[in-house]
Amino acid sequence: MSAVPVLVSHALCPYVQRAAIVLAEKGIAFERRDIDLAHKPAWFLRLSPTGRTPMLLVQGEALFESAAICEYLDETALPRLHPADALRRARHRAWMEFGSGLLDLIAAFYRAADDDALGQRAQEIRTRFARLEAVLADGPFFDGAFGLVDVVFGPVFRYFDLFDTLGDFGFFAATPKVRAWRRALAARPSVRQAAHPRHEALLRAFIQRQGGALARRLQGQAAGLA
Amino acid sequence: MSAVPVLVSHALCPYVQRAAIVLAEKGIAFERRDIDLAHKPAWFLRLSPTGRTPMLLVQGEALFESAAICEYLDETALPRLHPADALRRARHRAWMEFGSGLLDLIAAFYRAADDDALGQRAQEIRTRFARLEAVLADGPFFDGAFGLVDVVFGPVFRYFDLFDTLGDFGFFAATPKVRAWRRALAARPSVRQAAHPRHEALLRAFIQRQGGALARRLQGQAAGLA
Repeated sequence: MSAVPVLVSHALCPYVQRAAIVLAEKGIAFERRDIDLAHKPAWFLRLSPTGRTPMLLVQGEALFESAAICEYLDETALPRLHPADALRRARHRAWMEFGSGLLDLIAAFYRAADDDALGQRAQEIRTRFARLEAVLADGPFFDGAFGLVDVVFGPVFRYFDLFDTLGDFGFFAATPKVRAWRRALAARPSVRQAAHPRHEALLRAFIQRQGGALARRLQGQAAGLA
Repeated sequence: MSAVPVLVSHALCPYVQRAAIVLAEKGIAFERRDIDLAHKPAWFLRLSPTGRTPMLLVQGEALFESAAICEYLDETALPRLHPADALRRARHRAWMEFGSGLLDLIAAFYRAADDDALGQRAQEIRTRFARLEAVLADGPFFDGAFGLVDVVFGPVFRYFDLFDTLGDFGFFAATPKVRAWRRALAARPSVRQAAHPRHEALLRAFIQRQGGALARRLQGQAAGLA
């Protein structure tokens, strides 16, 4: 039994980053234990009903599902990240799910087979950003102060640091508030530190393995830089 | 503006049923407004960032995402369905997500192209049921009293009322606790009433339209009954 919570992680998992951000915002020391989701260790499969990361080993319990983990941490350690008002909290939770939907679109984007599909997926992402633009207020974060909903979008926007170097997709061209929000999240220490130290190199290698249109752009970029 | 909350629904949506069950458990009167997700009305697309049901029109707000809606209702109206202890509540929330994963497997089951795929999907569902069996206690519900986690599994188990008539898949053969839990949920008035009055006929027609192995079994059954 570890003295501090153990965050069972996969190096690139954006859902793991959510838990890592909340732990950092709360000032909770934790041990990060990376596993390979392509070769899941037996102890993990015994503990995890879904075989997915993150899992948080805490209080003798193996908590799974990032939403459950984040809400648990928010309910048991200060500072509280969710708003105090129930209706506002409900709205934040709904937009957290919206953020998970964006992760699905991002996966469809980096897996797109050809440039046509890549363009279509990019359009879908821009449409979602336009939805976000319509509900963002004056910043710096989703609803003013940094909250649990912001935790979800830190790892979402991180992907675009690489995507931006691979083409002019205009992801943020029509959405200045989303652009400013992205910048504020990128500057947040908890968000910065939540990624694996070799995140960008690992993400490049991962997208390369997808073998799609974005992988070919990566190859072209590497050839151009060589 | 309606005097009571409006639950924007699709006739067969299991996520809508969750909200309907919670509203019933709380004794909250509401208006159910069915829409056709194949032809989404403009007012709905304006209000919904995802285009999915359920949406709850309440307090001048269009709340989306079933998890956010259910948590909101649970936080603002008695009786409280979630457990009071934070760790236990986290465990329940994780198993709620597990229930959503089961809905994905159920969709893969009724869309399976041939009997081989149907058998594989059935095996995946049985594996998940075995995971549930390992954590269920003495009943009647997931963790004793009826809670928000039970709300999720009512609509999950409802599918098997029809599936059970279409083949001997042994879904519940090895999991007596899951079987008893399913019975307890089927008897709960809030769960029974959450489905559309024509639920079974609509589900049959819907599966028919999938055109897969299960659709062929439905046709065979209809021919046999004729």
